Amino acid sequence: MSKKDVRKVFLSEEDIPKRWYNVLADMPNKPEPYFSSRTNEVATPDELQAIFPMELIKQETSEERWIDIPDEVREMYKQWRPSPLYRAVGLEKLLDTPARIYYKYEGVNATGSHKLNTAIPQAYYNKKAGIKKLTTETGAGQWGSALSLACNHFGLECEVYMVKVSYGQKPYRRSFMKAFGANVIPSPSNLTECGRSILEKDPDSTGSLGIAISEAVEVAATNDDTNYALGSVLNHVCLHQTIIGLEAKKQLEVLDEYPDIVVACCGGGSNFAGIGFPFVKDKLDGTNIRLIAVEPTACPTLTKGVFAYDYGDTAKVGPIAKMYTLGHDFVPAGIHAGGLRYHGASPIVSQLYHDGIIEAQAVPQREVFDAALKFAKTEGIIPAPESAHAIRGAIIEALKCKESGESKVILFNLSGHGYFDMAAYDNYLNEKLVDIEYSDDLIKESMKNLPDIKK
Amino acid sequence: MSKKDVRKVFLSEEDIPKRWYNVLADMPNKPEPYFSSRTNEVATPDELQAIFPMELIKQETSEERWIDIPDEVREMYKQWRPSPLYRAVGLEKLLDTPARIYYKYEGVNATGSHKLNTAIPQAYYNKKAGIKKLTTETGAGQWGSALSLACNHFGLECEVYMVKVSYGQKPYRRSFMKAFGANVIPSPSNLTECGRSILEKDPDSTGSLGIAISEAVEVAATNDDTNYALGSVLNHVCLHQTIIGLEAKKQLEVLDEYPDIVVACCGGGSNFAGIGFPFVKDKLDGTNIRLIAVEPTACPTLTKGVFAYDYGDTAKVGPIAKMYTLGHDFVPAGIHAGGLRYHGASPIVSQLYHDGIIEAQAVPQREVFDAALKFAKTEGIIPAPESAHAIRGAIIEALKCKESGESKVILFNLSGHGYFDMAAYDNYLNEKLVDIEYSDDLIKESMKNLPDIKK
Repeated sequence: MSKKDVRKVFLSEEDIPKRWYNVLADMPNKPEPYFSSRTNEVATPDELQAIFPMELIKQETSEERWIDIPDEVREMYKQWRPSPLYRAVGLEKLLDTPARIYYKYEGVNATGSHKLNTAIPQAYYNKKAGIKKLTTETGAGQWGSALSLACNHFGLECEVYMVKVSYGQKPYRRSFMKAFGANVIPSPSNLTECGRSILEKDPDSTGSLGIAISEAVEVAATNDDTNYALGSVLNHVCLHQTIIGLEAKKQLEVLDEYPDIVVACCGGGSNFAGIGFPFVKDKLDGTNIRLIAVEPTACPTLTKGVFAYDYGDTAKVGPIAKMYTLGHDFVPAGIHAGGLRYHGASPIVSQLYHDGIIEAQAVPQREVFDAALKFAKTEGIIPAPESAHAIRGAIIEALKCKESGESKVILFNLSGHGYFDMAAYDNYLNEKLVDIEYSDDLIKESMKNLPDIKK
Repeated sequence: MSKKDVRKVFLSEEDIPKRWYNVLADMPNKPEPYFSSRTNEVATPDELQAIFPMELIKQETSEERWIDIPDEVREMYKQWRPSPLYRAVGLEKLLDTPARIYYKYEGVNATGSHKLNTAIPQAYYNKKAGIKKLTTETGAGQWGSALSLACNHFGLECEVYMVKVSYGQKPYRRSFMKAFGANVIPSPSNLTECGRSILEKDPDSTGSLGIAISEAVEVAATNDDTNYALGSVLNHVCLHQTIIGLEAKKQLEVLDEYPDIVVACCGGGSNFAGIGFPFVKDKLDGTNIRLIAVEPTACPTLTKGVFAYDYGDTAKVGPIAKMYTLGHDFVPAGIHAGGLRYHGASPIVSQLYHDGIIEAQAVPQREVFDAALKFAKTEGIIPAPESAHAIRGAIIEALKCKESGESKVILFNLSGHGYFDMAAYDNYLNEKLVDIEYSDDLIKESMKNLPDIKK
């Protein structure tokens, strides 16, 4: 069989990478340090230790290029990794493009997205540190599902603060987490000081991700045997996701291919980091490769935000980070790609973008759903609305190839499936979706309250 | 890596079987011929040709052992086939059994179940016969989804009559089919004579699978360029599914394994046929292997039905078949394993069961959901409620091994995932499910109206 006919590449379990790639080792400019929201000074490891285990704090700042994946984690990865790499022959044909389009499919595990890649090591390191319980927040439920499964595997309790409006609207995601033994609590709750103070002011509050984070962090910070876990943004989360790109590289090598363009959606940044970071060193070494982060016009953090210190969460309890941000008060429209509605972006992704090493592009949601359906019909997978941003990005590049006649190799990250997002497709098919774009003035307004950090 | 450590076996695209296995060639007693519901005589190919293409009618009665899979179908199979074979190491550990449990996972395609294995060839043969449109019925939506995708691929129109109550309750399955371009019609509709006559008597009718079949068959029978497609029961459907067992056999060979026990759930029978039929010849040749069909106690077709001629559908429009049946008037309780609520069973499966070549077992639904959650927690896949019957069957056998100390090899068919069935899990977790068992008297009552076939 010639490589032209190959539709997918599977690797064997032995090919699961033994080490994560740490892009911090190779960045010309490292990300700025975190500041404490309590002291307004550089955050100390001690402060972080109230909610994270030491091993993850070390990974957060390590400049070692390669970090060993523990055997217990690799063993668990074997449940679905190496994930498949597909050639999008159907989509190429539909677009009539000379480009060769490949996608890495991360939807083949129980929780249906790439989030499990970091949930497992986070649960593992916490378990090893003697922690009994992990808390987290969840909106759409993707991250909460992944952490529930990981905690169940390592015998940790899992407490998920789920934004109350989602708790009501997404009963199946809730059941999913419960199926894996998690305790799912509608937030705001009366279990935390923060939750009680919100409910006192507004007993009918439907909650927000900011409030849910505050509740989860509060429980972690005030209980010795309890830690907090975050599903994106932080360096160690991005690190764990690099297994995606490392595998994809190996799979393309099997076909004697190397990408000209790598595309991923970008919210907090771990999705993009996963497939993109392992190619950053090649680029810095002079390889001609473009790395493109695709975000929604409804939350254009990289393309319209500023590169500044800002709070990571609305309630200002977490660390302050130097990143691209729309301001912690920015509330994006309720688009269906819930995972891309974060006001900031990973400090590493931000620094790389600031330094011109990676590119960014914002796309409106109707184009995204159009791309998603083109992909579904030709490739037979319904993509998550978040992942569909990467598809749209890949299609834009593939159509450029059609114009120029170039046979470029495009690789994108299909980070999850859309089986839990059919309501979004329903709305699109019934023409209920509108495109959202914010004026520069409105965005400037939301950036008024950035913290005053003196370095 | 020793075979003991292997968690999954992938084959390459070249290993996709080139031929389906036709068990009719090896059965000591062939199934009895179909009768026409119109004439009460043996059905002629002409009568069948009103709704099926000649190629499928030939497959229905062919006694050739191997039937070539067309290149166009194999090409499409490559989108997800060969499907993975997993070793259930997590489940084995939980059960503390010396048995080695393997499962073939058919949930890795867009529609999430094995149904696509037959939807694709059915669409293909119809397209080749010059047909423009396929009609079908769907309850839960699994089959309708598969046929929608297949029709979209081969450029056929697809008209799905969806039981009205499901149309309202399962908007996401509906959107799924629409995403693939199908026309989804709540049944009873006023597009057919049958639908109109039902609505005349009962304008608020919520429909039934029997009515939906009648509508779909009526449209196919009265339009020259339109045919009908069925997702289970018939011989050619079972034939197409044998690709599951053929692949599983090869995958076990990679590990030097051969099953002592093969387990699958059984509704119409195509799921069981898929994994079980390729082992029937081995059994007839003297190999010591047990083939077990697991059905719900709420619809105990094989274990409590009779082996007799009966109508395939409530409205008595389709062919009459000799099969195990609970009577076409039998209305099973609304259990969540909607795909197992058929009053009859595949004529081939029925004949094999009657001849003692395969076994059958009925299990109550709470045991099934308990098994499903055990599996989800240890293997990381939420199974479809139908497939969970196979899991329950496998667990029963694995626990017997624990008692006896035997290291048997158990293979089961995980025919689909449960991402669209979280409501069922919700109900189970909230203790809303009850076990259903019917008295012999009640079942006898429903068998009063079997047709009077004189042979």
